[in-house]
Amino acid sequence: MIKVLIIGSGGVGVMSALALTNNNKCEVTLVVRSDYNLILSQGYSINSCTFGEFSNWKPHNLASSVEDANQYGPFDYIVLSTKNVPDGPITCENIIKPAIHGSETIILLQNGIHIEDAMFKAYPDNLILSGVSITGSTYYDGHVENVGKDQIYLGDFKTTNRNSDSDAKIHQYMELYQDPNGHNFIEVDENVQKTRWEKLIYNSVFNCITALVNLDVNRLQINNLNEELIKPAMYEVIKIAKTEGIECDESKIETYIHIGDGLFYSPSMCVDMRKGQLMELEIILGNPIKIARKNNVSVPILSTIYSLLKCVQFRLKEEKGLLKINQDDFKGNSNDYAKIFNEKYV
Amino acid sequence: MIKVLIIGSGGVGVMSALALTNNNKCEVTLVVRSDYNLILSQGYSINSCTFGEFSNWKPHNLASSVEDANQYGPFDYIVLSTKNVPDGPITCENIIKPAIHGSETIILLQNGIHIEDAMFKAYPDNLILSGVSITGSTYYDGHVENVGKDQIYLGDFKTTNRNSDSDAKIHQYMELYQDPNGHNFIEVDENVQKTRWEKLIYNSVFNCITALVNLDVNRLQINNLNEELIKPAMYEVIKIAKTEGIECDESKIETYIHIGDGLFYSPSMCVDMRKGQLMELEIILGNPIKIARKNNVSVPILSTIYSLLKCVQFRLKEEKGLLKINQDDFKGNSNDYAKIFNEKYV
Repeated sequence: MIKVLIIGSGGVGVMSALALTNNNKCEVTLVVRSDYNLILSQGYSINSCTFGEFSNWKPHNLASSVEDANQYGPFDYIVLSTKNVPDGPITCENIIKPAIHGSETIILLQNGIHIEDAMFKAYPDNLILSGVSITGSTYYDGHVENVGKDQIYLGDFKTTNRNSDSDAKIHQYMELYQDPNGHNFIEVDENVQKTRWEKLIYNSVFNCITALVNLDVNRLQINNLNEELIKPAMYEVIKIAKTEGIECDESKIETYIHIGDGLFYSPSMCVDMRKGQLMELEIILGNPIKIARKNNVSVPILSTIYSLLKCVQFRLKEEKGLLKINQDDFKGNSNDYAKIFNEKYV
Repeated sequence: MIKVLIIGSGGVGVMSALALTNNNKCEVTLVVRSDYNLILSQGYSINSCTFGEFSNWKPHNLASSVEDANQYGPFDYIVLSTKNVPDGPITCENIIKPAIHGSETIILLQNGIHIEDAMFKAYPDNLILSGVSITGSTYYDGHVENVGKDQIYLGDFKTTNRNSDSDAKIHQYMELYQDPNGHNFIEVDENVQKTRWEKLIYNSVFNCITALVNLDVNRLQINNLNEELIKPAMYEVIKIAKTEGIECDESKIETYIHIGDGLFYSPSMCVDMRKGQLMELEIILGNPIKIARKNNVSVPILSTIYSLLKCVQFRLKEEKGLLKINQDDFKGNSNDYAKIFNEKYV
C-alpha cells in the first residue's frame, strides 16, 4: 500500500490526513509534535463543512516526531504542512531530513513564494511538488474547525526540466486524495507560481498588516485601510509578480477585500504574533521584497511594512530567548548600528 | 506677585514648576491629577542633573484639577504641559478652559505641529506662546528623573499681527524661569515653526516607529532601520516642512540618529502604547501628513506609518472602552468598509 507521511498537524495538515485516511487508498502517518499525548489518548474532534463531524478521530499512524515516523516508512509521499520560518530555529529542509531515504515525493503544502529554492538545493534527487490549500481550517487543543471547503491545487514547481515522474505522481496523489462523492476538491495546478503569487495578494497584505497593528482584517477595513493601504499594497504585490513574468488576475483584489466580510478574521501571522510565536514573514513578504529589489521595482508600502515586521520578528525572537542583546556592546558606540547588527545580531 | 499655573505634572511640567518655584519670582500652582493624594502627602522626590536632588518637594500650591486651581488664581501665565491628544476624550482647549478668565498668557509647552490652531480659535483674545522643551525628564510614581539639562525655547506662534504684549511677556517669563546661576536654560525662539519641525524630525520618526513595533530606539537601529526606514522617513519630514517654507537643518538627522547611542530609550508614544494609553499621534504625525496632502507632497513611508498607527490608536481606544464595535453591524455587508467607518466609528 502507498504510504503518505504528513508533517505538520495544524488545521491544513489534519484536513489532509482526514481526506487521505477516509479514502483508504493509502496508509497515513501524521507527525504530531506538541499535542502528541493528547491526540494519542483521545484523537481529534473535527467539525468540518467538508466531511462532517468526527470525534476520537485518528489517521492510521501517529508519530511524535519525524524520526519516530520512520518506523512506518519508507514513505512514497511526504506532505509538509508545518509553518515555514527559514529565519527560525529549524528550516523546512531540516524538518523533513529524517524521513528522506531515496525517492520520496515531497509536497510543500505551505504558503509563500520561492519556498522550493532551499528544498531543491537540499534534495536534488527528489520530486518536489507545490500544494496550495484554500481550506479554511484551524486547529486548537485537539479540535479542528473547518469552515471553508477543503481545496488543494497541486502542481510541479518546475516549468522546464521536469522530472519524468511528475505528472504520474501528481495524478496518483490526486486519486489518493479526491473523495469519490466530491466532498473535497483537488486539481492540477498548471501554473504554480501564478497560484502562489495570487495567494500572496491576500497574505502579503492582510497577514502582514494585521500582525503589525494587532487587529483583525475587518477592524483594518473599518479604519479606511482598504483605500489607504490595502489596495495600494495589493497592487504592489501584482507589480512584483509582473517583473517575474507572472500576470496576476487583478480582480483578486476585490475578491480578497470582501472574502472576510463580517467575519472579523485574524490571519495566521497575526495569531502567531499574539501567541509570541515566530511569523512566516520571510516566505510571505521577505521573498517578494528580495525579488522586488533584484528586479528594481519600487514598492514603498511593502518595503516599509517589511522593515517594520522584521523588527517585530526580532522582538518575538528576543522574547523567546532565541537571541540576546548585550547592552554593554553598545556603550559609547558612535558607529552606525547597522554594522553592529551585521556582525553579531543576525 | 505674578501667578503661574502649570497644567500637566509629567517630567516636563514638574521641571518647570521646580525652576519657577526655586527662582521665587512668582507663585506657582501645579495641577496634579492622577497622583494628587500621593504628592500632597509626600511631595516629589527629584533627581535632577539641572538642579540636584530634592525630597518632599512641592511648589507653592497643588491643585487636584484645573477647577480646583482657580482658588489660587487668576493667573498671569498658564503653562500647558499635558499630553496632547485631540482625538481623545478631552482636547487641550477644554482642559484649560476653567482657568481662562481674561488676559492670561498661554504657553503651549508641548510637542507637535499646528497645535496652536485650535487654541487660537478657542481663545482669540489671549496671547498664546510656543514652548519647546528639550529637557530629558521622566515622571513615575512621585519621582522625577531628569537626565538632560532643562532647556526651553519660548516664542510667539505668530510671525505677523503679533500681540503688542508678545515680546514683553516672553521676556518676563524668561526672567521668572532663568536660574541666576545658569543651571537651566531658556531662550527666545525666533522661529517657532522651524524649532517645532526640527523636533518632529526625531518625534515623527522614532516615536512613531517604536510605538508600532514595540521596541526601543536602539533595537530599531540594530535591525538596520537607520538606513532602511529612519533616515528616509526623516527626509520626508524635512520635505513636508519645505513645502511650508521651513528649511530644516539637515544635520539634525545625524544628530538624532546618535542622540540615544547606547541608551536603549523608548520614546513617549511607545511608552503610552505599552501602558494602553492613547498616543499623541495626531499632533506628531497626523498634522504633518495633513500638510503633506494639502501641499501635494509624496511621503510614502510616513503615510504608511500613519495609516498603521491610526489602527493602533483605534485598538487602544477600543481597549479603553472609548469606542465599541458592534459586529452585527457588519453582517453580510458587501459595501466598502470605509463608508461604514465614516458614518459611525469615528
